Amino acid sequence: MRILVLNPNTTASMTEKIAAAAREAAGPDTEIIARNPRNGPASIEGYYDEAMSLAGLLEVIRATPEADAVVLACFDDTGLDAARCLTDRPVIGIGEAGFHMASMLSNKFSVVTTLARSVPALEHNLHRYGLWSRCARIRSSGVAVLELEDPASDASARINEQIRLAILEDRAEAIVLGCAGMTDLAARLTREHGLPVLDGVACAVTLAQSMHRLQLRTSRLGGYAPVPEHKRVFPL
Amino acid sequence: MRILVLNPNTTASMTEKIAAAAREAAGPDTEIIARNPRNGPASIEGYYDEAMSLAGLLEVIRATPEADAVVLACFDDTGLDAARCLTDRPVIGIGEAGFHMASMLSNKFSVVTTLARSVPALEHNLHRYGLWSRCARIRSSGVAVLELEDPASDASARINEQIRLAILEDRAEAIVLGCAGMTDLAARLTREHGLPVLDGVACAVTLAQSMHRLQLRTSRLGGYAPVPEHKRVFPL
Amino acid sequence: MRILVLNPNTTASMTEKIAAAAREAAGPDTEIIARNPRNGPASIEGYYDEAMSLAGLLEVIRATPEADAVVLACFDDTGLDAARCLTDRPVIGIGEAGFHMASMLSNKFSVVTTLARSVPALEHNLHRYGLWSRCARIRSSGVAVLELEDPASDASARINEQIRLAILEDRAEAIVLGCAGMTDLAARLTREHGLPVLDGVACAVTLAQSMHRLQLRTSRLGGYAPVPEHKRVFPL
Amino acid sequence: MRILVLNPNTTASMTEKIAAAAREAAGPDTEIIARNPRNGPASIEGYYDEAMSLAGLLEVIRATPEADAVVLACFDDTGLDAARCLTDRPVIGIGEAGFHMASMLSNKFSVVTTLARSVPALEHNLHRYGLWSRCARIRSSGVAVLELEDPASDASARINEQIRLAILEDRAEAIVLGCAGMTDLAARLTREHGLPVLDGVACAVTLAQSMHRLQLRTSRLGGYAPVPEHKRVFPL
Amino acid sequence: MRILVLNPNTTASMTEKIAAAAREAAGPDTEIIARNPRNGPASIEGYYDEAMSLAGLLEVIRATPEADAVVLACFDDTGLDAARCLTDRPVIGIGEAGFHMASMLSNKFSVVTTLARSVPALEHNLHRYGLWSRCARIRSSGVAVLELEDPASDASARINEQIRLAILEDRAEAIVLGCAGMTDLAARLTREHGLPVLDGVACAVTLAQSMHRLQLRTSRLGGYAPVPEHKRVFPL
Amino acid sequence: MRILVLNPNTTASMTEKIAAAAREAAGPDTEIIARNPRNGPASIEGYYDEAMSLAGLLEVIRATPEADAVVLACFDDTGLDAARCLTDRPVIGIGEAGFHMASMLSNKFSVVTTLARSVPALEHNLHRYGLWSRCARIRSSGVAVLELEDPASDASARINEQIRLAILEDRAEAIVLGCAGMTDLAARLTREHGLPVLDGVACAVTLAQSMHRLQLRTSRLGGYAPVPEHKRVFPL
Repeated sequence: MRILVLNPNTTASMTEKIAAAAREAAGPDTEIIARNPRNGPASIEGYYDEAMSLAGLLEVIRATPEADAVVLACFDDTGLDAARCLTDRPVIGIGEAGFHMASMLSNKFSVVTTLARSVPALEHNLHRYGLWSRCARIRSSGVAVLELEDPASDASARINEQIRLAILEDRAEAIVLGCAGMTDLAARLTREHGLPVLDGVACAVTLAQSMHRLQLRTSRLGGYAPVPEHKRVFPL
Repeated sequence: MRILVLNPNTTASMTEKIAAAAREAAGPDTEIIARNPRNGPASIEGYYDEAMSLAGLLEVIRATPEADAVVLACFDDTGLDAARCLTDRPVIGIGEAGFHMASMLSNKFSVVTTLARSVPALEHNLHRYGLWSRCARIRSSGVAVLELEDPASDASARINEQIRLAILEDRAEAIVLGCAGMTDLAARLTREHGLPVLDGVACAVTLAQSMHRLQLRTSRLGGYAPVPEHKRVFPL
Repeated sequence: MRILVLNPNTTASMTEKIAAAAREAAGPDTEIIARNPRNGPASIEGYYDEAMSLAGLLEVIRATPEADAVVLACFDDTGLDAARCLTDRPVIGIGEAGFHMASMLSNKFSVVTTLARSVPALEHNLHRYGLWSRCARIRSSGVAVLELEDPASDASARINEQIRLAILEDRAEAIVLGCAGMTDLAARLTREHGLPVLDGVACAVTLAQSMHRLQLRTSRLGGYAPVPEHKRVFPL
Repeated sequence: MRILVLNPNTTASMTEKIAAAAREAAGPDTEIIARNPRNGPASIEGYYDEAMSLAGLLEVIRATPEADAVVLACFDDTGLDAARCLTDRPVIGIGEAGFHMASMLSNKFSVVTTLARSVPALEHNLHRYGLWSRCARIRSSGVAVLELEDPASDASARINEQIRLAILEDRAEAIVLGCAGMTDLAARLTREHGLPVLDGVACAVTLAQSMHRLQLRTSRLGGYAPVPEHKRVFPL
Repeated sequence: MRILVLNPNTTASMTEKIAAAAREAAGPDTEIIARNPRNGPASIEGYYDEAMSLAGLLEVIRATPEADAVVLACFDDTGLDAARCLTDRPVIGIGEAGFHMASMLSNKFSVVTTLARSVPALEHNLHRYGLWSRCARIRSSGVAVLELEDPASDASARINEQIRLAILEDRAEAIVLGCAGMTDLAARLTREHGLPVLDGVACAVTLAQSMHRLQLRTSRLGGYAPVPEHKRVFPL
Repeated sequence: MRILVLNPNTTASMTEKIAAAAREAAGPDTEIIARNPRNGPASIEGYYDEAMSLAGLLEVIRATPEADAVVLACFDDTGLDAARCLTDRPVIGIGEAGFHMASMLSNKFSVVTTLARSVPALEHNLHRYGLWSRCARIRSSGVAVLELEDPASDASARINEQIRLAILEDRAEAIVLGCAGMTDLAARLTREHGLPVLDGVACAVTLAQSMHRLQLRTSRLGGYAPVPEHKRVFPL
């Protein structure tokens, strides 16, 4: 099968890192088509960036009909609902993927994300998904998204500290990493902290495989009813 | 004061109808600047249309710095959070305005909206605003947004029927009309059905006046922290 | 229009302070009729005082038929539901007014109130209004209501400290001041702390103006059905 | 022990009926002191009546220091919180008593009450007590409180019909009778409908006995902190 | 009447301690039949022990038909729902008993229990009972169940410390002791800490007496429908 | 990899049907080890059967150390938490699997299950998982579990009818089949009703594959802390 792994920001190095994580999670029999929009924010940090990435993000989905499933590789699950109106192929956000998986491995998880400005959008998502009661706390590490691309930053230390506090103060039994740019850290952090540390990219890719194998498709009734043809594209 | 009343869809006749309602609600001392985006969906019916209207909607806000407050005149409160990151002027969605006002006039309200495909987005909003427990039910009338612009349609009868059922079956004590295109119906429906029928456009306009008079501004802390300058505009 | 601003306690100096704030919020075209009951508690601090203020409070409403709207100027929204059964004019509590307004300016707010004994009643209100999930925390400052009338007290310092903690620990994006006696502090605290600090008196007054302008009236169906004539007054 | 069973309305025949039920529930070793306020509403149907009964109700509690516990025999639990500030003796509302007991006998219960105007106050109570999720539905029978005192009314048939519907439509596993005036119906309705039908008066009386035997007293911390002496009585 | 007080673990000294507390709570006219299963875990600390105690626990209930009511004396309310399918006699868990009683004596309570591993099961129970919003926090003291049987342990000091913190940090107005093995501590802790400290064993016993006196029986509709005869016993 | 697919009831024909569905979902590279306990209920319908199946169910897990993951193939997720204390291999219930998957394909789903007596246990699970708000309704078809094994029954027609009503009345966008014995119906019902109809067995098997591939293991902190060795087995 083919999975479109769509990084909603325009930072190519991050798209590549995500692609590598997705390929490792998917295994050899699945083709990962990694893309990012041509135009839009270089990083998605909060509501405004989300909004400005949507037109480009949806354009990539329209331009990739060969994909059997779509993974939205931004932890805010940017554009998730809109994408599901555009196609009945499975569309999975890496945020929801991490939350759902963590819910089956622990009684309660904490999220460690980037900047404080991203926290309320994640809280809204958890409320809407229904999983708010499973999340002990969303912790911002103070690390900006693009710092994760910089090997010289102290991002790693700040993330470590928040995981430590999540175990101690939140009684978290698992951690969900709150940014696609953290995808390469999960295995090491799992070992170091002695609890499941989940990367949403890997979770979403294997969920997409599951849905494809089971021929599960996005519902066409109600909120995800297909967009009428004449509304699909606009001159922008 | 000046209020930007922003119809997120591109149907000019609807913008005009909304402007008239806004002017009547605002009274003579407030200037209503009614706008719609140049490009985007002609009507907003569900998640996809919402997403595709955002870039145009935010562009109008950036292009209207003379406004003292912004009213987003789509009942899904399209772009509400993103707009609040762009400016600390009050930004009010007509959906939230109707919900908050109805909560101070009744124990429980029902919403009568357009198509079934719009209902889940409204449910998400109510969950996030916290007012889900105040809403008895969201009812779709089966009326498409642009039918409301067509005097020959039977839209009015179908809306009447849903209000009748809301009183009977939901024990609703008030009704919130779930589309900016219904703005001209509220007064008549209030009289005919004997309970408060709220139009979000009027509610939002007077809330904007209140906030302006009280010098209340959108918070700059946390989720609505200002967008950095270099991220404000992108070539699209 | 005329707004009855009703201080449910019997401390005249507080009624005057509230009246001044209400007049400033309302502007010159609205007449503020400021009243307090003749008999009842000198301050309302908790459930018992609330209960003992009700008969006097409702008497003032019955005795002021010339008012177009009623503002209940106690942060517990004492008597709110009972008052709405007595009249279909808008009746607004300063607590709900502050909560609803803050919900449109921030993702999450904290409340800074007087004594710890008042906190549970505010929590009950937030649950019932539906806005519990929008409130990060209710903080008691340990300041008694009548200390706010005493310029020599250190009330101000204690309120400042709680706002500081609300920003730091609760990640509050706005503050709602939890007592009518704090009405004169909001503007200064907004400037000093760099986030919206809302005074319920001002919020409620402009909401009353909005409802009056839009001819919105309290529902007569269900819980606010009119009290039968023979039940309106009792010998006490 | 002695239990003050306080009917908050002024209808003596109802006080007597409640007293008889309380005595039967309590058994011979407990003295039931049945009282109603001298002044106040003849029946409590909704928020306004509740408010107007409070001063009289609290006066009865102050005037009955010999009671070891207090039962508030109105299904809205009128004055419950205020009474708890006045004394550390156990104070139990018949509404809460029925809800808590039904929660230990069934997965889900429905309430059958009097008029529709009383429903929102009961919903508020259930939210505040936390037991909202245990209640399938609150059903109004359309029976006014004083009709329950009239043997010629068809009150019984209307209550029967709502119980039937609660089993059929709400999947209720138990019924809580929503008015002190229904106290004499519980045993017969239990037999006829084949599920537990709970009378709050009987439940509250035995709960008061339990608390007294276990020397459990109302907390003096937080919301139920004792009222200062000078605030206990006011000239009215 | 006769109450089966069933300690689901197999530690006889604990059964005796529980029996003594139950007899003191019940008074002379009620016979306490104290039992524990022949086989099963010596202490119940978490989900696995709960599961392994169930067959033995249900066997004791089947073997004690002379009991008029059943008290399940483990704070996780082990087997509560299954037991209710086996008999329509009242079945009360000491956890739910403590939670419901505390809800009528305080606005908010905290639980002080044994090991951290037991906390999530208690959280699940509180969610399901509906009383989650009434619980400020569940605190583990780090005391293992069988340490409570050892007079030389420092269990008491650690429990004291958690109560102190519950008052200070959680603003708890009452404490529910979270283990049947703490049943002998409640009276002393109430005196020392100046707030109600509830023991679930005593609460459950008097609730069983109440239900028996009022002839209240477990519902036979829905989830507690009687188990068909052929399914009652299996060879194990 | 090897997945233990554990049917908690003792009906071998059902175990075989489940095994076939699991093998089809898993594909050729995964070995399905299908087992049921030797002793216990022939069908699991409600709380009592759940309780009586646990000892046997946990014995099967202990006796199958070669499995890399465990799927609990009863829709009540019988023994889920206890099993997770016994092993850090992934343990997935078919109920939770269906709920989580349906949440990523629809805004809202309904469940169609067997008898009414099973509904409350499913409601408890949904509350605890956090997904209650995503479930429109749990519908019982009135079909007993073992009727699903009888080709001559009208089980299929009754399930069809409930799906039809779920679409019409609940506005469900997806259906989760509420019994392992319905595993062979999902594909046909999806085609016939035009919305996703999910079988928990297939969902759980592919989730187990995902977790195994990603080396995700059940948390050992908090509620799923490992059971001490001496507590693992008891003579029964």
